[in-house]
Amino acid sequence: MRITEVRVTPVAFRDPPLLNASGVHQPWALRTVVEVVTDEGLTGLGETYGDLAHLELVRAAARLLPGHDAYAHHAIYAQVAASVGAQVTTRHATARTATKEKTLDRVFSPFEVACVDIQARAAGRPVADLLGGAVRDSVPYSAYLFYKWAGHPGAEPDGFGAALDAEGLVAQARLLVDAYGFRSLKLKGGVRPPAEEIEAVHALRDAFPELPIRIDPNAAWTPETSLMVARELAGVLEYLEDPTPGLDGMAAVAAEAGMPLATNMCVVAFEHLPPAIERRAIGVLLADHHYWGGLVRSTQLARLCATFGLELSMHSNSHLGISLAAMTHLAAAVPTLAYACDTHTPWLAGQDVVAPGALRFHDGAVEVPRGPGLGVELDRDALAVMHENYLKCGIRTRDDGGYMRTTDPAFSSARPRW
Amino acid sequence: MRITEVRVTPVAFRDPPLLNASGVHQPWALRTVVEVVTDEGLTGLGETYGDLAHLELVRAAARLLPGHDAYAHHAIYAQVAASVGAQVTTRHATARTATKEKTLDRVFSPFEVACVDIQARAAGRPVADLLGGAVRDSVPYSAYLFYKWAGHPGAEPDGFGAALDAEGLVAQARLLVDAYGFRSLKLKGGVRPPAEEIEAVHALRDAFPELPIRIDPNAAWTPETSLMVARELAGVLEYLEDPTPGLDGMAAVAAEAGMPLATNMCVVAFEHLPPAIERRAIGVLLADHHYWGGLVRSTQLARLCATFGLELSMHSNSHLGISLAAMTHLAAAVPTLAYACDTHTPWLAGQDVVAPGALRFHDGAVEVPRGPGLGVELDRDALAVMHENYLKCGIRTRDDGGYMRTTDPAFSSARPRW
Ligand SMILES: [Mg+2]
Ligand SMILES: [Mg+2]
Repeated sequence: MRITEVRVTPVAFRDPPLLNASGVHQPWALRTVVEVVTDEGLTGLGETYGDLAHLELVRAAARLLPGHDAYAHHAIYAQVAASVGAQVTTRHATARTATKEKTLDRVFSPFEVACVDIQARAAGRPVADLLGGAVRDSVPYSAYLFYKWAGHPGAEPDGFGAALDAEGLVAQARLLVDAYGFRSLKLKGGVRPPAEEIEAVHALRDAFPELPIRIDPNAAWTPETSLMVARELAGVLEYLEDPTPGLDGMAAVAAEAGMPLATNMCVVAFEHLPPAIERRAIGVLLADHHYWGGLVRSTQLARLCATFGLELSMHSNSHLGISLAAMTHLAAAVPTLAYACDTHTPWLAGQDVVAPGALRFHDGAVEVPRGPGLGVELDRDALAVMHENYLKCGIRTRDDGGYMRTTDPAFSSARPRW
Repeated sequence: MRITEVRVTPVAFRDPPLLNASGVHQPWALRTVVEVVTDEGLTGLGETYGDLAHLELVRAAARLLPGHDAYAHHAIYAQVAASVGAQVTTRHATARTATKEKTLDRVFSPFEVACVDIQARAAGRPVADLLGGAVRDSVPYSAYLFYKWAGHPGAEPDGFGAALDAEGLVAQARLLVDAYGFRSLKLKGGVRPPAEEIEAVHALRDAFPELPIRIDPNAAWTPETSLMVARELAGVLEYLEDPTPGLDGMAAVAAEAGMPLATNMCVVAFEHLPPAIERRAIGVLLADHHYWGGLVRSTQLARLCATFGLELSMHSNSHLGISLAAMTHLAAAVPTLAYACDTHTPWLAGQDVVAPGALRFHDGAVEVPRGPGLGVELDRDALAVMHENYLKCGIRTRDDGGYMRTTDPAFSSARPRW
């Protein structure tokens, strides 16, 4: 099954002004859609980041893939590695985790997902079946709560409303829980002073006494602040995600915190696991096939985590339906992925590049698609519109900090902040 | 793709009197052939140990598999786990590595291999392609040298001749290298006093100056003896395999030995990896899909080893062609498996349950079969003959020590011996 063509299409979609430690989401979020076409008429789909430096690496690698066998993951990985070379394009520089390996795994991932999609379509089976089979019919996701403005500066308020304090977050959570049935909550923190975010978590706990809650300040806190928060929220949080930058800080907090620490910042490539394990810096790893080198490597990561007693959850960046399908198949096929996964899906407000109907939330969970492959099909009209958005929006690299400084020139995303 | 029937057939084949620290191979070696039949007309093959306690667990699990989907590895694993329960049937008790988990992984393995075979046949692809694709066209194996008697007591000498000293081992190596083209040597030690085995390794080095050499005394030595051997063979051995029992001893030897230590005794299940890594007890892991839970789990093991800087080689017990095919596909699809693999194939002297021609040695390597699945087919006549052998041979559980004591009543397989 030879690859004959690889199409790489950058897209942009409207994104609400979601606040985080880096700044605030710009009006347009970027993604890249990858289509891998084979000589047997099967096409597979992948989705990845849209930042220009990454897009250029994906495009360069894509040009080298025709002629490769869609089953030859190792050979494709080697080809992508040769293409990427020593280039490094990774965010999270504050956590000192930008590496050649992570860059390579990020570039490889959409091709791998597309090839697994092709193999599953060829077999007439869902992708989950090629990963050991679904152990759950549907995958629970968490309501991903953000402090946010009512709308982008100079624009009309969006449909989600403002959320600048505990009351606003509770209202937002109510909106998402009512619409999607979510059964756990995640708060993106690192935005307001820690005391306010502690208050917000308590307010969420009071409003939703049955739902597990986690908070993720994206390393905005010192170890001391992190431990203060851990004490204030003991018995309230299911886990505390990336409270502080770096392994040293995480290990210091982990040694005393009353709940597991989770990360998608200090452990983002296989090479980061040995020191993190040796120092007992984390208890929960947030997997993400977009930077762990695709679906199969993510199952290998899951085995490694189970071996060393690390729990698993799943990380999300702003994404579209191809990624949601891939995340759902992966999570369904990893028995040890016991936490609800993160997703930005609600913030899309219905925008997507995949044809509607394949992915539905019910009780906060997405049913694993039962059709062949990922179980989603490209909506070519939507793809064309989103590609037009990309061409016109003027954004080529996500810059939450720069966008924040257009309204608050003094804003700094340096961490730890508190 | 539903499983409709699982056939489990114990077989026996003639085995030469190969000496090792446990005793000597009996005249018949036992294996179990597993055939998994599906409702779509595809049948997959697996092969596993033949000891009675294990056979009974395999049979009990096999009865529960009809109705399961051949792609549902996690569900099949859970079914096998429920069947095995808390039963433990594992050799290597001296190394304190008999565990419920290892027993489960051993019972699961032949079913997993058969299901991967089915999936690959359904896809019309070699098994290696379902493991990421072959990164080498052929898989190098080592010449597996044994001290041995000329023949079994009371029987005619076999075609291999005696090998009771350095000269005999060099002659044996010459025979195997000439016949198979092997480009590396492995000596099963733990049989003669260490000084004699050191002398034998030097003799092999002199006779085959180009070939890497390893020795495996199966934990017959104390840590002190191990270090003496390591000093005497510094610069001669590519690795030193299981010189001494247990992690404590292995870690002590590893700290001072001039070559990596390898094991298939002190790390035989995922749970053994964290302490072995923490204590730097080993440098090379000998993978073996028969007890690491099949092919996919072995690729996960490979990723874990690469992450922690452990090298990979491959272990062998006496086996037939189904296993050789599975080992070859696995080794071909694991980029980091850089050492020549072990195999007992030459000692079969042509006996097999698979139809001839599919697996050939050339320059000591086996070409990866290119047909669908494992690329081997059962020879039903041969299977029937070998099953008759099993019924008539009277051996139900391998007992190298008991067999040795029929000629040397004082023999003890207690370790360390020297
Ligand atoms: Mg995070
Ligand atoms: Mg061994």
